[in-house]
Amino acid sequence: MAGYRHILAAVDLAPGEEDPVLGRAAALARQYGARLSLLHVVEYVPPLDLAYDPVVPVGVDIENQLMDRARAELDRRLGWLGVEGAQAFVEAGSPKRETVRFAQENGVDLIVVGTRGRHGLSLLLGSTANGVLHHAPCDVLAVRIHDEAADSAPGD
Amino acid sequence: MAGYRHILAAVDLAPGEEDPVLGRAAALARQYGARLSLLHVVEYVPPLDLAYDPVVPVGVDIENQLMDRARAELDRRLGWLGVEGAQAFVEAGSPKRETVRFAQENGVDLIVVGTRGRHGLSLLLGSTANGVLHHAPCDVLAVRIHDEAADSAPGD
Repeated sequence: MAGYRHILAAVDLAPGEEDPVLGRAAALARQYGARLSLLHVVEYVPPLDLAYDPVVPVGVDIENQLMDRARAELDRRLGWLGVEGAQAFVEAGSPKRETVRFAQENGVDLIVVGTRGRHGLSLLLGSTANGVLHHAPCDVLAVRIHDEAADSAPGD
Repeated sequence: MAGYRHILAAVDLAPGEEDPVLGRAAALARQYGARLSLLHVVEYVPPLDLAYDPVVPVGVDIENQLMDRARAELDRRLGWLGVEGAQAFVEAGSPKRETVRFAQENGVDLIVVGTRGRHGLSLLLGSTANGVLHHAPCDVLAVRIHDEAADSAPGD
């Protein structure tokens, strides 16, 4: 069976989140000699006041600031990953939709995404891993992120 | 990052279903020098007549027949996979639950499962890949099975 040629790591940038996902994606890219892309999607919904007017003054572009910060974070990670030719991308919008769109448009054959596992209501509401799983045009590797608080929650 | 040590292929045995899942699981097991287990779960609900009595005569054990047939099918696949030390297992019950249970009890660190992608109602109703993703104690690789009928369905 042919190996993977283009691996996409969907990077959340939440504390403790990126290491297992990036580490696994980088290891597989090295194993298969595959191209590696890192993607972070900034999901920013501007806060509104009770009259549905924006709270943030006009002219302050928070989304662009978040995207700049994400770019810097991804570049730092590219540095320590040390996978030759790896590239980082930042998009704005729905993480699920942008990840799937990126995969479709760039011939990705494996998406690596983090999952904490979901139960009860949060399972019905869905997660990025879930949305990507159902809409991806390719294979999806869900890397389990061990979240001590969630892992020990009742009903887990 | 450490490689995978015990890979579980959740085998559906539906026509055309097993090849990509098994092929990918075997390739990864070879790459990582990991132990490979094949698991098929027989999900048999006895048909009942309108009075909720079983249709099948007492003494005909269809579940055991299905399990025997599954064992033979898995053994055939073990033959053509040619992965040293690979083992096949057959369980009865809910594919999602039995797959997760097997993974927990046998120190599996990667489950490979097939997915056709789900949309609309079938997404809410869930699938084996979905259930395994949310309850597995380890990483899950969902291998996309290209189903021509489903891939060309409206809204896909």
